[in-house]
Amino acid sequence: MHLSSIITIGDELLIGQTIDTNSVWIAQELNKIGFHIHERVAVADQKEQIIETLDRVLSKVQVVIITGGLGPTEDDLTKPTLASYFQSRLVQNEEVLQHIKDIFTKRNRPFQFRNLKQAEVPHNCTVLFNQYGTAPGMWFEKDGKIIVSLPGVPFEMEKIMKDSVLPKLKELFQNQFIYHKNLLIMNMGESILANKISDIEANLPQSVSMAYLPGMGFVKLRFSGQGLDEAKVKKIVDYEAQKVIQRFPNHCAAEKDIAIEEAVAELFIEKKLSLGFAESCTGGYFSHKITNIPGCSAFFKGSIISYSNEIKEKNLLVSAETIHEKGAVSKEIVEQMAINARKILNVDIALAVSGILGPTGGTDQKPVGLIHLAISSKEKVVHKQFHFIYDRIRNKEMILNHGLECLRLFVKNELA
Amino acid sequence: MHLSSIITIGDELLIGQTIDTNSVWIAQELNKIGFHIHERVAVADQKEQIIETLDRVLSKVQVVIITGGLGPTEDDLTKPTLASYFQSRLVQNEEVLQHIKDIFTKRNRPFQFRNLKQAEVPHNCTVLFNQYGTAPGMWFEKDGKIIVSLPGVPFEMEKIMKDSVLPKLKELFQNQFIYHKNLLIMNMGESILANKISDIEANLPQSVSMAYLPGMGFVKLRFSGQGLDEAKVKKIVDYEAQKVIQRFPNHCAAEKDIAIEEAVAELFIEKKLSLGFAESCTGGYFSHKITNIPGCSAFFKGSIISYSNEIKEKNLLVSAETIHEKGAVSKEIVEQMAINARKILNVDIALAVSGILGPTGGTDQKPVGLIHLAISSKEKVVHKQFHFIYDRIRNKEMILNHGLECLRLFVKNELA
Repeated sequence: MHLSSIITIGDELLIGQTIDTNSVWIAQELNKIGFHIHERVAVADQKEQIIETLDRVLSKVQVVIITGGLGPTEDDLTKPTLASYFQSRLVQNEEVLQHIKDIFTKRNRPFQFRNLKQAEVPHNCTVLFNQYGTAPGMWFEKDGKIIVSLPGVPFEMEKIMKDSVLPKLKELFQNQFIYHKNLLIMNMGESILANKISDIEANLPQSVSMAYLPGMGFVKLRFSGQGLDEAKVKKIVDYEAQKVIQRFPNHCAAEKDIAIEEAVAELFIEKKLSLGFAESCTGGYFSHKITNIPGCSAFFKGSIISYSNEIKEKNLLVSAETIHEKGAVSKEIVEQMAINARKILNVDIALAVSGILGPTGGTDQKPVGLIHLAISSKEKVVHKQFHFIYDRIRNKEMILNHGLECLRLFVKNELA
Repeated sequence: MHLSSIITIGDELLIGQTIDTNSVWIAQELNKIGFHIHERVAVADQKEQIIETLDRVLSKVQVVIITGGLGPTEDDLTKPTLASYFQSRLVQNEEVLQHIKDIFTKRNRPFQFRNLKQAEVPHNCTVLFNQYGTAPGMWFEKDGKIIVSLPGVPFEMEKIMKDSVLPKLKELFQNQFIYHKNLLIMNMGESILANKISDIEANLPQSVSMAYLPGMGFVKLRFSGQGLDEAKVKKIVDYEAQKVIQRFPNHCAAEKDIAIEEAVAELFIEKKLSLGFAESCTGGYFSHKITNIPGCSAFFKGSIISYSNEIKEKNLLVSAETIHEKGAVSKEIVEQMAINARKILNVDIALAVSGILGPTGGTDQKPVGLIHLAISSKEKVVHKQFHFIYDRIRNKEMILNHGLECLRLFVKNELA
């Protein structure tokens, strides 16, 4: 099994101004082609620290992927640092230069002198073409080890990885086959789940491992196996996963690494049902998550975001009297919202939600975190009430995941 | 200046299954109280690697914050590893045990035997109360250095940091004052911006540094200064930032570290205007981002998510004929959407958007990434057309940021 480490460079990572999604993505992709990630480390735009870190990780792993610090501005030090580390001189690359000029022409912006610097590359590296941006990737080899430097802009980095780095690595390193099987277990806490499958966990074959990845309202359960025989590895891992699926048929929303909205989408497409939302407190989050899925127009028609009472009354035809009597956060109102939205949007199934997300707006009777949810089809309306205890953003996330799971069970006729 | 490092533990971080938001948040908070973050490193749930990493970072920094690996399941090794590292024995903590039992009672779930283990703590650590979860935090001191272990669940970790860790660290370490001033520069590329302010950058006082943080459709420009005299540091940094603001009065959407939606929210509240959206391709993303802001009900009323043409026609009263003639992604349609949404939602200003996000659905005339946007007030309608070149999710992000910037300029009467 070959080892790899990921180094991300940039002061912004150390003062917490940006979230490092790059190394997550890189880890996933390297893992898929059989690399084990030894560590991920974020360091400053600082020559000594970059070199020290490179020295250290190169003593442990075969492949190092570096992202960041390749921009055109003064605070970007990765390229000169690597050039000195690999004892090379910077030379202008004509192909890169032309590409940079093309980008500026296409964007209808004047070419900047400082971008000339971006066309310079160490003479002893292989240049990796950056289709989406001006900073080229660089591939170095030293003592049989591979060091790759990539821009920090995620979509630029991902494109170079897919087009150049991953295919080259796959060719150079013949790794053991690694297989992950993920189960999406909804609405069950990590420790309860662990307890209920402790017998399965205790009796896993040596070549299979299991990990719990708790989220907001769900646990992803990951089975991993590895070996030289792809078919055999898959068979052993799938067999263990099946034991869990059979134990919780109603909690297992997916047998692959997808989010609950994707599981819902697959179900709606399979059942040929159409969907719409009436969202109050979630303000479009359900609709947003569903429309992130390519092809969602096959089942998703649209929504009414009735954040104000006025819009609940005027556009969702909810009774002003009921709002006055019961309040906008109530069983009666979400049921009206769901029933009316189904008709107004002309869909098979509508989900409606109203609640108090916080931080303010709660009362003794209706505290922050109280959520009412209703789902309506032509045949029936089901109401659910939740009370979440987190902050505004996390309460929204909890509503989304619990709500989508309710929707999934509703369609499967399993929502109690 | 005191140094700190952050270690995150968990195989899921190394195979890229979860994004590490914890160390971002911790870095921010430590930075605010004057700590410089030397490095952030993610390692496996593996005893030897945890110990090796601890040894290494402790040789460089005064404070180490560790997150993750404290769960109730077998793959969580942080606690026994730390216990052995600090040569301690695990003892049951009665307070923690009672708290865990209370949590299970409150959630109406049976107490799990494996959670007993979570009430065990090394005898020589200070226990940090975890209000939201079952795994307590742990504070160790060794040779004058501080090592803190926290659960990996973000809101649990954050609560313990705020309640216990940050106040204790602030008391123990008297640090230099660090001050960041952020400018949100919209709709200008990093290299063009850098070129236009190269004179300001070249003449910065020694105590001030500047960094570019490019996003989708914007650059955050961060000025940083440090020193013992808080007022003096602020004055010097603010003076430099002002030079940039005065140079780009129309591009600088905020003079603090906020997102464009927050800048828009402040403007709508200040101007006492109400807002609504008619979203097609963005499917609720504008509404979602606006409603993430606490207090948005002061100006945001609601939206119609007209993902299908049927809803555009039926609920937004867009002309079926125009859709047939011009297509749903056209100047004419978004203008109708904006004008009608303003009336239907009864708001002062409505923004409408329709486009082709991809990956499919494009044609030669209307390629993937083509976006039409219109903003309507009582007095006028402004139309804008964009063409973004990224994938579905990033195209959505670009529309959001460009669209909100258009909205900001529209309200300020500066949208050309």
